[in-house]
Amino acid sequence: MRRLNLITCGESHGKYLAAILEGMPAGLPVDLARIHHELWRRQQGYGRGGRQKIEKDEVEILGGVVGGKTTGAPVGFLLTNRDFKIDKMPELFRPRPGHADLAGALKYSQGIRAVLERSSARETAMRVAAGALAKLLLKEFGIEVLSHVIGIGTARVPEETLSFDQIKKRAAASEMNCAFPETEKEMVRVVSEAMEKRDSVGGQFEVRVSGAPIGLGSYVHWARKLDGQIAQGLMSLQSVKAVEFGLGTHLGTIFGSEAQDEIFYSKEKGYYRKTGRAGGIEGGMTNGSELAVRATMKPISTLRQPLTSVNMKTKKPEKAEYERSDICVVPAGSVIGEAIVALEVADAFLEKFGGDSLGEIERNYKGYLQEIE
Amino acid sequence: MRRLNLITCGESHGKYLAAILEGMPAGLPVDLARIHHELWRRQQGYGRGGRQKIEKDEVEILGGVVGGKTTGAPVGFLLTNRDFKIDKMPELFRPRPGHADLAGALKYSQGIRAVLERSSARETAMRVAAGALAKLLLKEFGIEVLSHVIGIGTARVPEETLSFDQIKKRAAASEMNCAFPETEKEMVRVVSEAMEKRDSVGGQFEVRVSGAPIGLGSYVHWARKLDGQIAQGLMSLQSVKAVEFGLGTHLGTIFGSEAQDEIFYSKEKGYYRKTGRAGGIEGGMTNGSELAVRATMKPISTLRQPLTSVNMKTKKPEKAEYERSDICVVPAGSVIGEAIVALEVADAFLEKFGGDSLGEIERNYKGYLQEIE
Amino acid sequence: MRRLNLITCGESHGKYLAAILEGMPAGLPVDLARIHHELWRRQQGYGRGGRQKIEKDEVEILGGVVGGKTTGAPVGFLLTNRDFKIDKMPELFRPRPGHADLAGALKYSQGIRAVLERSSARETAMRVAAGALAKLLLKEFGIEVLSHVIGIGTARVPEETLSFDQIKKRAAASEMNCAFPETEKEMVRVVSEAMEKRDSVGGQFEVRVSGAPIGLGSYVHWARKLDGQIAQGLMSLQSVKAVEFGLGTHLGTIFGSEAQDEIFYSKEKGYYRKTGRAGGIEGGMTNGSELAVRATMKPISTLRQPLTSVNMKTKKPEKAEYERSDICVVPAGSVIGEAIVALEVADAFLEKFGGDSLGEIERNYKGYLQEIE
Amino acid sequence: MRRLNLITCGESHGKYLAAILEGMPAGLPVDLARIHHELWRRQQGYGRGGRQKIEKDEVEILGGVVGGKTTGAPVGFLLTNRDFKIDKMPELFRPRPGHADLAGALKYSQGIRAVLERSSARETAMRVAAGALAKLLLKEFGIEVLSHVIGIGTARVPEETLSFDQIKKRAAASEMNCAFPETEKEMVRVVSEAMEKRDSVGGQFEVRVSGAPIGLGSYVHWARKLDGQIAQGLMSLQSVKAVEFGLGTHLGTIFGSEAQDEIFYSKEKGYYRKTGRAGGIEGGMTNGSELAVRATMKPISTLRQPLTSVNMKTKKPEKAEYERSDICVVPAGSVIGEAIVALEVADAFLEKFGGDSLGEIERNYKGYLQEIE
Repeated sequence: MRRLNLITCGESHGKYLAAILEGMPAGLPVDLARIHHELWRRQQGYGRGGRQKIEKDEVEILGGVVGGKTTGAPVGFLLTNRDFKIDKMPELFRPRPGHADLAGALKYSQGIRAVLERSSARETAMRVAAGALAKLLLKEFGIEVLSHVIGIGTARVPEETLSFDQIKKRAAASEMNCAFPETEKEMVRVVSEAMEKRDSVGGQFEVRVSGAPIGLGSYVHWARKLDGQIAQGLMSLQSVKAVEFGLGTHLGTIFGSEAQDEIFYSKEKGYYRKTGRAGGIEGGMTNGSELAVRATMKPISTLRQPLTSVNMKTKKPEKAEYERSDICVVPAGSVIGEAIVALEVADAFLEKFGGDSLGEIERNYKGYLQEIE
Repeated sequence: MRRLNLITCGESHGKYLAAILEGMPAGLPVDLARIHHELWRRQQGYGRGGRQKIEKDEVEILGGVVGGKTTGAPVGFLLTNRDFKIDKMPELFRPRPGHADLAGALKYSQGIRAVLERSSARETAMRVAAGALAKLLLKEFGIEVLSHVIGIGTARVPEETLSFDQIKKRAAASEMNCAFPETEKEMVRVVSEAMEKRDSVGGQFEVRVSGAPIGLGSYVHWARKLDGQIAQGLMSLQSVKAVEFGLGTHLGTIFGSEAQDEIFYSKEKGYYRKTGRAGGIEGGMTNGSELAVRATMKPISTLRQPLTSVNMKTKKPEKAEYERSDICVVPAGSVIGEAIVALEVADAFLEKFGGDSLGEIERNYKGYLQEIE
Repeated sequence: MRRLNLITCGESHGKYLAAILEGMPAGLPVDLARIHHELWRRQQGYGRGGRQKIEKDEVEILGGVVGGKTTGAPVGFLLTNRDFKIDKMPELFRPRPGHADLAGALKYSQGIRAVLERSSARETAMRVAAGALAKLLLKEFGIEVLSHVIGIGTARVPEETLSFDQIKKRAAASEMNCAFPETEKEMVRVVSEAMEKRDSVGGQFEVRVSGAPIGLGSYVHWARKLDGQIAQGLMSLQSVKAVEFGLGTHLGTIFGSEAQDEIFYSKEKGYYRKTGRAGGIEGGMTNGSELAVRATMKPISTLRQPLTSVNMKTKKPEKAEYERSDICVVPAGSVIGEAIVALEVADAFLEKFGGDSLGEIERNYKGYLQEIE
Repeated sequence: MRRLNLITCGESHGKYLAAILEGMPAGLPVDLARIHHELWRRQQGYGRGGRQKIEKDEVEILGGVVGGKTTGAPVGFLLTNRDFKIDKMPELFRPRPGHADLAGALKYSQGIRAVLERSSARETAMRVAAGALAKLLLKEFGIEVLSHVIGIGTARVPEETLSFDQIKKRAAASEMNCAFPETEKEMVRVVSEAMEKRDSVGGQFEVRVSGAPIGLGSYVHWARKLDGQIAQGLMSLQSVKAVEFGLGTHLGTIFGSEAQDEIFYSKEKGYYRKTGRAGGIEGGMTNGSELAVRATMKPISTLRQPLTSVNMKTKKPEKAEYERSDICVVPAGSVIGEAIVALEVADAFLEKFGGDSLGEIERNYKGYLQEIE
C-alpha cells in the first residue's frame, strides 16, 4: 500500500491490540457502531472456540478523529483484550504443524509462546477495524464490499448466480456468512463432523466489490497492479493458501474465446460486461464490473487430536501442543478478507483521485466519471 | 520488495526495454550467458507467435557490474528490440476484452496504442533478466528455483511425485517446460487445436524452490509475509488469475488432520517434513521444505477470431482489434514466474541475512545455520 | 526508513498518543524506566509552558514485548494525556503565522482546531518513546547517542572541544541540556527576556553518535544515504529549519585542503580521523568517526503578543490566535532530535547487519568488525 | 518519494548511465531539448575539470513516451558516456578523505575503484534528466523552479532582494549561475585562487519554487513533510552538508516576533505573505509563498595536492589518490539541486491532486484552487 499504510500491533493474550491506519482523508464521519458491527461479524460462525465467548471486540479511537470525523491524521484503534494473561501463559516446546511456531522460534531465536501470540489470527481484529473505516470511505462513493462463504470442506454453494444485493442480504442472515441456506446447513454439518473427530476444517470465501469505477490500479508497473496488491493482502491472512480472481484456476483449462468478458456499451451504463470471468480486473485495473476474488483457507492447524511434532528441547518426537482453538474460521475469514480488500481498493481509489478531504475527492471523482462517460 | 527494488521500463515495440534492480550485494559474479539462457527460455514453447522469431533477447548491463562482478550499486539491463516500430504503428479503437486496453485508455486518457505497448507481456523479459541475477545470487547459497508447466487447457500432468532434480531435468528437455513427456504431447495437441480454432489457451505452472533455509519472510507484520509477497509478484504477471501454495484450493475441502505437514527431526536433516501440503510456507515464512507455488494463466486475450467489443470513437459494437499474438504462453509464463519467485525469495534472504558483500552474507548465513541446527 | 517503520497517532489534547514501531529484532530487554527517563527529559527546559506541569509522560507498551523482551513483532506505545479536552476546545479562525494552521485548514478543508491538534509537537513524545527503544538497541552494540543545546537566541556555546562523555555528563546536569554552564546561564537569560517581551526564541542543538561502525548507510542509491535519511528525520521535527553535518554551512566558505578529515591507521584503532569536519559521514555512510549533526529550531510560532493574521471566516485582518504555549523548546527539541537520529542509525544498522534476534545481529556484527579490522 | 520513484544506475566511466522515473502521469509533452538544456547547464561553471570537455550529455528516452508524450508508464533515460574506460582503469588503494572510498570499500568488501565509480557525482546527470521532466510537469501548472549560486568560498551575494524572474534571468546569463555580476567575478577569482593552490572550494546555492499552491506536503505524518523530503533529496547530493529553509540557521538566533511571516489576504492574491522567512514551508507544507531552500556544498574532496591517507594494502600512511577532478562544482550543484527539488515538489503535487493524465490533474487542481480561493 502506498497511500494507505496499516500497521497493527499486539499479541493474542496481550493486554491490547492496536493499529494505526495512515493516509485517510479528512472529513469522513466515523460511525463507531459500524466498526463494532464488523468486529462482531468477525466473531461469528459456527465452529468458533471459547475465546469468542470471552471477548466482545470493541475499539477505542486513539487519534485521527475529531468531532466524529477523520482529520487526515493517522487513525489509531485500540482494543483491550478481556482474556489478558500473556505473562502467565506457559512456554511451549512442541511446534504445531501448519503454524508459524517452528520457523518463528528458530528465526527469532525465542520460545514458541512469543511466536504464537503474534502469529495468531487474533491480530486480524485490527485489520477488520481499519477495513471498516475503509468501507465507510468507499461507501461515500457508492462502492460496496461484501463477502460470503462459498465452501467449507465438501460443502459447496451451487453454481447459481445471485446479484450483489441478494448475496449481501442472504449472507447477513446466515450464521456461516453463506448466501445459500441449504449449503449453510451442510456447512454446519461438516463443521460438526470435524468437531466430533476433534479435527478442523477449511473452506473458501469470496469477496465482491460493486460500484468501483473503471481504472483503479495500474498496468504500468508490476507493483501497482491492483490484483497483485489484493493477492498480497489476502495471502497475508492467516490460513489463506490460494487466491483467485474471477473464474480463477478454471481459466487455465479453457479456450480464450470462453475466457474473456466481451465489451458492450450503452448510454445508460457506459461500457459494461455481461460476464464476470476476469473478476472485474483486467491489466491490473478495475474494469467497471464487479470485482470478485476468492480465497481458500486451509483448516485450522491447532488440532484437539494433535499431529506428530518434535520437542524442541529434547529433539524427540512428541505430539504437537494444543491450545484452545476454533474448529472452523472460514466465516470469520470472509469478514477479514472483506476488510483486506476494502483497504486495498480504498488505497487504489485514493491514489487515483488524490485529495485530502472528502469534498475534494468527490469533486475529483465526479470529474473523472464525467470524462469517461 | 524492500531490500530489492525492481523497476522496468519500455514498450513492446519501443526501441528499448530496460530495468534497474536496486539492492543487490557486491561480489556476485555475473554470468551473462546464464542471463541470456533464461531470456532464451522465456522465448520458447510451442504456440508462440511470430515475434519470437524476430527477437533474440540479449541484454547489455547498464551498470552495477565492474570486472564481471556486482558492486552493490543498482544493476541495469538494456534490451534493444529488433522489431522496433512503435511510432509507425496505428492507433487502435476497439479494445480487446481481457486486456488493459479499455480501462487503460480511460484511466490515462489516451489511445489504446500507448496502453497496449506497455501492458504487453514483452516487459517481462526484463523481469526474467533481473530474476536471472537473483537466481545467481541464490545459487551461491545452494538455493535453486525451477518451474514447470503442469497444465495447458485440458492437458494436465499426472499426480505422480517427482524430485526437484527430476522435474528440473525433464522440464529442461521439454519444449513446453513440462516434466511429463506424455502430457507434453497432449499439451502440444491442445495448443494445435486452439491454433486451428483461431483461439488461444491457458494453463498452469508451478515454481519450486529448494534449499531455502527455515525462516525467510515473517509473521510479525502482514506486509512482510513471504507468501503474500510472492502472491503479489505472481499475480502481477500478465494473464495470471490464481496463485496457490502447496495443495492450494484443495486445502479448503479437507480436514485439518490431512492438511498439515507433520514435523520430524533427525541429526542429519535437522527439522524436516515428509509432506509438502503447505507449499513450504507456514506463518508467512519458509519452513525448510521445498517451496511450491502454482499460478494459473488465463488464455491469451488477443484472438484471431476476435470477440465483441465497442469502437471507442463511435461507441458502436465492433469486433476487437487483433494484433499479432501468441496462442499459448504458459511455458514462457513459467519461466517468468520462476524469475518473480527468485526475486522475492532473494529479497527475503537479503532481509534476513543483511550484508553488503557475498562474503559477508555467507558468514551471516552460516552463523544462522549453525545456530538453528 | 526501510527496516524500521514508525507511525505515530494522536492529537495534542486527545485522550491518547500512540505509536507503532515496526522492524525491531527479538530479544532486546525493554527497560521501561529508560524510556520514561527520555520522556521526562523531553519535558524539561526553562521556558516551557504550563502543559508540562500537567503531564507526566509515561507510556504503556501495547505489544511486541513479552516477558520484558522484544519479540520481533511491532512494538506499540500508548500515552494517556491528562490534559484531555479536545472535544471541548473551541474552533479557531485566525491562523498563527509560522504554524500549519492556514495551509492545513485549506488543504484538508477543515477548521484550524483539527490541524493544530495534530501538527502540535506533542506528537514528538511518541518519537521519543520509539527513539528510546532504538537507543537501547544501539547501546547493545556500544553505540551511544547524545544531544546538547549549542545556542539559544544570541547565547552560543564557545568553540571549545569537549569529548563525547564530557558533553553527555555536563548536558545531563543542565536544565537547558547545555554542556557549558556559563552559556546555560546566558540561555536562561535570553529565554527570560523573550518571556518578558511576551515573545519566543529559537536555537540550535547538536546530536552526536559514538561507536557507530564504518559503513552504515550507502552511496549506491540516493535514497539510501544515511545523511539524507537523518536530514529528513530532523527536518520533520516541528520548528526545525536547518540541518548541518560536521562543519555544516561553514564548509561552503573554505578551501578543500581545510575541509576534509585526513585518514590515519593504527593497529589499536584501525582507520581513524583526528578531525570531525564531515560530521562522521562521507558518501552517505558513517566513516567510523563520531557522527555529528546540528539542527536549528526557529522560535515557537505561538506568541503571547500575537502577530497579524486574517480571520478565515471574515477574511478581515485580525491578530492570530493564542493558545497556551512554550517560550523556548530547544532543550526539548534536542532530546527529540536524539531520538530521531537514534531511529535512523538503528535502521541503517539493522539494514547492514540483518538478523532477527539480538544474538544473530551480534554475531553478524562481530564478523564484520573482524573482517574490516 | 511515494508517487514518483527515481532509481539511477551506472558508473562514472561505465558505458552508460541510466535512470527510470516511475509515477509520471500521461499526456505530458516531452521536450527533449529542454532536458538537454538542463544537462548542458549541469556541465557549466568555471572550475570544472577536463571531463566536461569530453562529454556532451544528451539522453535517449528508453520508454514511457509515445508520440512525444508521456504515457503514464515508467520513463527511462539513457546516457552514453564518451569517456568510457572503466575496465581499463587502475585499482586504487589510497582512499581520498572526504569521499566514499574508505567506508565504501570496507562496507562492500571491494576495491576503491568500484566505489569511486558509483559514488561519483557523474550519476547526478540522471537526476537532472529526471528533474527536467518534473520541471516540465510543474510548468504545466504554472510552477517554476530556479537555482542560483549564492556563495563560493568567501565570495557571497549581497543581501539585496531580487524577484524570482530577476534571479532567473540574471543567473541564466552567468557562467556561475549567480544573479549578481559583481559577486560572480569574485567567485571566479576564488575558484582561480583554488586552482592555483591546487586546491578546491565549496559554496552555497539556493533553489526557489514559485507558483506552488498552498498545501503541498503534510503535517500529519513525519514522513510526509515536504521539507523533510526536500532535505533528504538535497542532502543526498554529493558534497552537500547543510540544508536550510528560509532564514535557516539565522532563525535560531532571533525572537519569534521577527521570525514568522504574517498572514494577509486580498481578493486578488488570496492569502499571502510579505516576507519569506519560513522559506515557504510551514508545518511541512507549502504556504503559498515562494519556496526557498539553500544547500551548502563542501569543497570537492579530490585534491591535486593530496591529503594524508593510508594505503589499504600496506596500512602505511601515503598521500591520497588523485583522479582528474573539478575545482568547484557549486554551479553544477545548483542545477542538480533544482532537479532534486523539482522531483520532490512534483511528487507532493501528484500526491495532492492524484490523477493519471495531464487533463485530469488540471481539473483536480483547478477545483482545489477554486475551493480555497
